[in-house]
Amino acid sequence: MKRNVLCTLAFDGSAFHGWQRQPNAFTAQQAVEAAVLRVTGENTPVVGCSRTDAGVHARMFCCHFRTQSAVPCAKLPAALNFYLPDALSVQCCEDVPDAFHARYDCKEKTYRYHLRNSRTRDPFLLRRAWFEGAPMDAALLHAQAQDFLGTHDFSSFCAAGADTKTAVRTVRRFEVTRESDDVFFTVAADGFLYNMVRIMVGTLTDIAKGKRPPGCIPGVLAAKNRAAAGLTAPAAGLFLWAINY
Amino acid sequence: MKRNVLCTLAFDGSAFHGWQRQPNAFTAQQAVEAAVLRVTGENTPVVGCSRTDAGVHARMFCCHFRTQSAVPCAKLPAALNFYLPDALSVQCCEDVPDAFHARYDCKEKTYRYHLRNSRTRDPFLLRRAWFEGAPMDAALLHAQAQDFLGTHDFSSFCAAGADTKTAVRTVRRFEVTRESDDVFFTVAADGFLYNMVRIMVGTLTDIAKGKRPPGCIPGVLAAKNRAAAGLTAPAAGLFLWAINY
Repeated sequence: MKRNVLCTLAFDGSAFHGWQRQPNAFTAQQAVEAAVLRVTGENTPVVGCSRTDAGVHARMFCCHFRTQSAVPCAKLPAALNFYLPDALSVQCCEDVPDAFHARYDCKEKTYRYHLRNSRTRDPFLLRRAWFEGAPMDAALLHAQAQDFLGTHDFSSFCAAGADTKTAVRTVRRFEVTRESDDVFFTVAADGFLYNMVRIMVGTLTDIAKGKRPPGCIPGVLAAKNRAAAGLTAPAAGLFLWAINY
Repeated sequence: MKRNVLCTLAFDGSAFHGWQRQPNAFTAQQAVEAAVLRVTGENTPVVGCSRTDAGVHARMFCCHFRTQSAVPCAKLPAALNFYLPDALSVQCCEDVPDAFHARYDCKEKTYRYHLRNSRTRDPFLLRRAWFEGAPMDAALLHAQAQDFLGTHDFSSFCAAGADTKTAVRTVRRFEVTRESDDVFFTVAADGFLYNMVRIMVGTLTDIAKGKRPPGCIPGVLAAKNRAAAGLTAPAAGLFLWAINY
């Protein structure tokens, strides 16, 4: 009888070409699968809670894998971290029911987007934030973001090439706050389409820059057309922030 | 008549072999001098407020240079940053009196040392903190650090090979605080010897780990011998934090 292990980790996305296994690039999934192989001796697939793009970070990421290993969960993080690159760290492991699935059982995900809004760069935020010098009104951004709340067809906020069955998602929370020169967009939903957060952030900043009128979001949603929305904000500012099962 | 320009900058030390110019390694000073050459057309020395070691960061660093350029200080940061690597950013420039010297006129420097005290690594603190899994009592560290306050001969806390005239320095503040898994050592003095902060932090952590008895600092100071103190904490956790003129 194989155990089913839920693994919570964090990674610096600048070190990986996203989560998902790829033939010609190094991904976070491959790093974890290689570490599981070293620790358990088993070549077992590690299933992630979401695909993340190249350059996107994860403060919290969940995955599961099946194993016959007897290593207790209390000792697994240190064992896995021994074989993992420094840019990825397993925080904890727990045994879960056999039917548990890291992606399908996820009830809510929270992303946080970090926009650095200052005239000069901060070298410590390199590859970890989007730098925009033009002053942005966080209160305006927050007010406009409330138009995303609720259940909508988010086709306008989905990159071309996505192959999901439905573009309907429910956004439960969208807060924009400023702390000195840092603007944080925190958005929670039952699920996200490909590039959805980055396109929402890009469209909101268009409003803050005066390129689009306040109140335009409902019309962009109704268009159900990617071309109606704004630019895709850079990957570097995006963090998968929390996962709820 | 040449202007004298004071330049305030920040840099991620992991990208440089310290501040000071070197023949066979890339340093922060060389980066700034190259940018000044591009902006002003002048090959002028840039004088820093301190040498920082390879891997040591600067949240705030000051330097001065003389120039005949007419570019106003309001425009210099953007002009310099255009030619600087992303790991170094000029925050502001100001014209100062001809006699001003970035090193000799410094009245107080503040360093902050970041120790990450948790069982698992944080991938976002890679090269920016010292990871120590053994639990450390920040209140004990703070209490012991108070023995550094005042004017002392800090020879025991100076790496071999330093060529300063006197090892007497005045430490004005030394605070150790914990924020969740992060322990911060903040120390302000009129000046610091080579590796002084890193050896003070290393010796304090020896006390927290039970390797040295509480109350040992005055004796270590009195020994005036590097061998009497503890290990040199890694460079990655050290940040030059503030400069006062």
